[in-house]
Amino acid sequence: MSDDDQELGITESKSHNTGEWYAEVVQKAGLADYGPDGMSGFIVTRPRAYGVWERLQGFLDAKFKDTGVQNAYFPLFIPESYLEREKEIVEGFDPEVAWVTEAGNTELDERLAVRPTSESIITPYISQWVRSHRDLPLRVNQWCSVVRWEATETKPFFRTKEFLWQEGHTAHATAEDAWEETMTRLDQYESVYEDLLAMPVLKGQKPDHDTFPGAETTTTVEALMPDGKSVQAGTSHHLGQSFAEAFDITFSDEDEEERTAHTTSWGLSWRALGALIMTHSDEQGLVLPPGVAPEQVVVVPIWQEDTKGDVLDYAEGVADDLDDAGVRVELDDRDERNPGFKFNEHELNGVPLRIEIGPHEVEDGELTLVHRPDGESIVEERDGVADTVRDHFDEIYAKLYAAAEETLDGEVREADDRAGILGTLGQHGGYVKTPWCGDEACEEPIKEPMAAEIVMVPFEEEDPLVDGDHGETCAICGEDAERTAYFAKSY
Amino acid sequence: MSDDDQELGITESKSHNTGEWYAEVVQKAGLADYGPDGMSGFIVTRPRAYGVWERLQGFLDAKFKDTGVQNAYFPLFIPESYLEREKEIVEGFDPEVAWVTEAGNTELDERLAVRPTSESIITPYISQWVRSHRDLPLRVNQWCSVVRWEATETKPFFRTKEFLWQEGHTAHATAEDAWEETMTRLDQYESVYEDLLAMPVLKGQKPDHDTFPGAETTTTVEALMPDGKSVQAGTSHHLGQSFAEAFDITFSDEDEEERTAHTTSWGLSWRALGALIMTHSDEQGLVLPPGVAPEQVVVVPIWQEDTKGDVLDYAEGVADDLDDAGVRVELDDRDERNPGFKFNEHELNGVPLRIEIGPHEVEDGELTLVHRPDGESIVEERDGVADTVRDHFDEIYAKLYAAAEETLDGEVREADDRAGILGTLGQHGGYVKTPWCGDEACEEPIKEPMAAEIVMVPFEEEDPLVDGDHGETCAICGEDAERTAYFAKSY
Repeated sequence: MSDDDQELGITESKSHNTGEWYAEVVQKAGLADYGPDGMSGFIVTRPRAYGVWERLQGFLDAKFKDTGVQNAYFPLFIPESYLEREKEIVEGFDPEVAWVTEAGNTELDERLAVRPTSESIITPYISQWVRSHRDLPLRVNQWCSVVRWEATETKPFFRTKEFLWQEGHTAHATAEDAWEETMTRLDQYESVYEDLLAMPVLKGQKPDHDTFPGAETTTTVEALMPDGKSVQAGTSHHLGQSFAEAFDITFSDEDEEERTAHTTSWGLSWRALGALIMTHSDEQGLVLPPGVAPEQVVVVPIWQEDTKGDVLDYAEGVADDLDDAGVRVELDDRDERNPGFKFNEHELNGVPLRIEIGPHEVEDGELTLVHRPDGESIVEERDGVADTVRDHFDEIYAKLYAAAEETLDGEVREADDRAGILGTLGQHGGYVKTPWCGDEACEEPIKEPMAAEIVMVPFEEEDPLVDGDHGETCAICGEDAERTAYFAKSY
Repeated sequence: MSDDDQELGITESKSHNTGEWYAEVVQKAGLADYGPDGMSGFIVTRPRAYGVWERLQGFLDAKFKDTGVQNAYFPLFIPESYLEREKEIVEGFDPEVAWVTEAGNTELDERLAVRPTSESIITPYISQWVRSHRDLPLRVNQWCSVVRWEATETKPFFRTKEFLWQEGHTAHATAEDAWEETMTRLDQYESVYEDLLAMPVLKGQKPDHDTFPGAETTTTVEALMPDGKSVQAGTSHHLGQSFAEAFDITFSDEDEEERTAHTTSWGLSWRALGALIMTHSDEQGLVLPPGVAPEQVVVVPIWQEDTKGDVLDYAEGVADDLDDAGVRVELDDRDERNPGFKFNEHELNGVPLRIEIGPHEVEDGELTLVHRPDGESIVEERDGVADTVRDHFDEIYAKLYAAAEETLDGEVREADDRAGILGTLGQHGGYVKTPWCGDEACEEPIKEPMAAEIVMVPFEEEDPLVDGDHGETCAICGEDAERTAYFAKSY
């Protein structure tokens, strides 16, 4: 058994070697495998990770549908001429594109890009479908994979050449409607993190010099990772009229005037899985909030030969009750493993709640519940087990959220000059909040030595510096500060 | 209004120009658009069609999960050397492959195939994951798109270069387990058609000379189309040990012997959407069974100025009740369209049930319900509308199923010689059932002149000819008949 026990342990330290620890959790908890030889940068998403993705998808998709979004599916390939057309407005994804050049045993006349994102193929169709103000707002979303050929080291769910995501694309009659849409989707992304994944995020916009190509405003939710770096965890873009003009999305308005639409796009990728795994997991392995855990409860019977029958019967009854109540439960009645091995294995695999049942529990009509994040052990009545378990799910979620929130709160620091920003980032990582004139040039003196950048600027209405009339000055240039900038290293 | 009315009509005849009629329904009901210039063979799946696909997916995915299948996601690309490896056992998909040859601004060392199917990349991973008999059965499934570069005319959902599907891949300890798996999936495909899509299908196996490359047995569900052709509507393959041997899937068995696994694969594509649209739709447009219709009910209020307030209030109450009960309902209270236009539009779009509400209905506390497939109109009490509507869904489903079943029953004919087979197929289309010796050579005399083939052979236990000892002789060669063959033209 000792060999097996060893296999289950995570050997790397979360705080000291975050990257190696992450890779080990991903592998040992059976979340992903690396792609085949010759395909570095690709991963195989195994059922445990895919199961989390499906739950995230279900949560977000329901919110989309409740707010007027319809799913659709557009071709995997985009003709080169379509990408070229987009270049009228944006630099585009050219250097990262994978090209299909041969098919059906012949060379193609025109190269086809494997989609890196789908604005350039979706927008021309939206243009065909929109005729009148009655066709607006028009909202489509697709769940798919995209390919971006980045030549960096693979990090499952964070940096992969192919990734799963959703991309939403909408058209509206007015700039206000498009802005409202942009914020609706950002709020939904915030909710995925906070309400489902138990992760607090910072919400705001990217500085104007770092928006999505062609966008008027890029809004973002940013999540803090345990190595002190920020992850751009979901973005929602107010595209203004740039795409609508390039692709000719016009509509006849109520007054019969022909007007140009305003568009948005917004995406959230499986990077959310990476951020989730990194945030809560520990040196026993994966930690998942109950809402997304493929297995929410494992029931582990603990018996001697003379108590086996009673203990197993009791454990089966408990598992059946939970299953009937819609809880995702596994009864681990394997003969060939001892309870200690099972505890370790289910901890590694991120099962949020363990129910231990031995002869004492049977005798007393009780259950011993153990929380995954902290090992807290609580004895509860057997009766009403489904309700009890749901209460414990809430407690586990609350524990995870509180711990992540405490970490985040402690990792937002202030500084008001260059040395302070660099010193704080260098010593602690995390976010440094500072007054900023709004000029891209004032990001450079931080970016150049530290590879940290302005990852987020709070929205105007939440930024006390917006009136610019309170005497605060930019931490870099000393001119009047117009916005608050959050500097951080990022993924 | 007359212009608009014209736009809504289907001009082609279902029985005389089935192909043109189908293309017109797909376009006018907003199901799909053709791909961009330079990408013939690709389609854009619009929300109405994608919504049907999502419901089919939900239905089938739940069945998969109830029977031990887990979803996963494998890379979009397959290195050429992996496809080559597969060639040890099968001829493969080479002529239909789309190749990525350039990416990230450089030429790749090895060409990457855009997956035409994923056996060659999934099986090596299954091989890694399977060590012991305790790891079996192992079942993974992915919902994804695949690309096969066929140079035929595009027919949305039937013939497209990229299509959506699911592909399941499993490994088992014994041939019996693999066969049971093969049949479980085939039965689930049958259930999708019969229970969800209201389409009876024929179930059986492909003749041995027409199995999936590398398969021991290919089982199929076949659906009859209105032009008398058969559609292979879902296939489940018992792969025997060929893939397991080529990719080295071995396991240590209970007796500690190392054994080779037995594998299966099974897939169902969006061709199911095509078959669904073709089967039930008519010259008013799309017809959908309530279970998959994105909009199940449309409430159309019919008012004059003096009754508008009362009628609209009543209609809103009805729509709210249905919405609260989880029915997918739309209240069509547009001012700018008259009821006749609305009726036509919702018929075109395949809404299964229309509720008409005018002043009489308000006065009498009633509702007028109209079934989409046949226009039957029934007056019902307003109270208990949700239950009433569900009863009508059942009736509509039953009508659709009965009509399709009657058609299918009438299109299975018998013949016992070559002239009879050719004559029957030529005159009627449909299926011709005939005694067959089992030899591929006896398919040629039908296939060559008629482009019809053996699309299905009933399973042994359902085929009275299997004992071969009853005096029946092969319709072509006159030798002893061993099986019953179903000849048909096919998609």
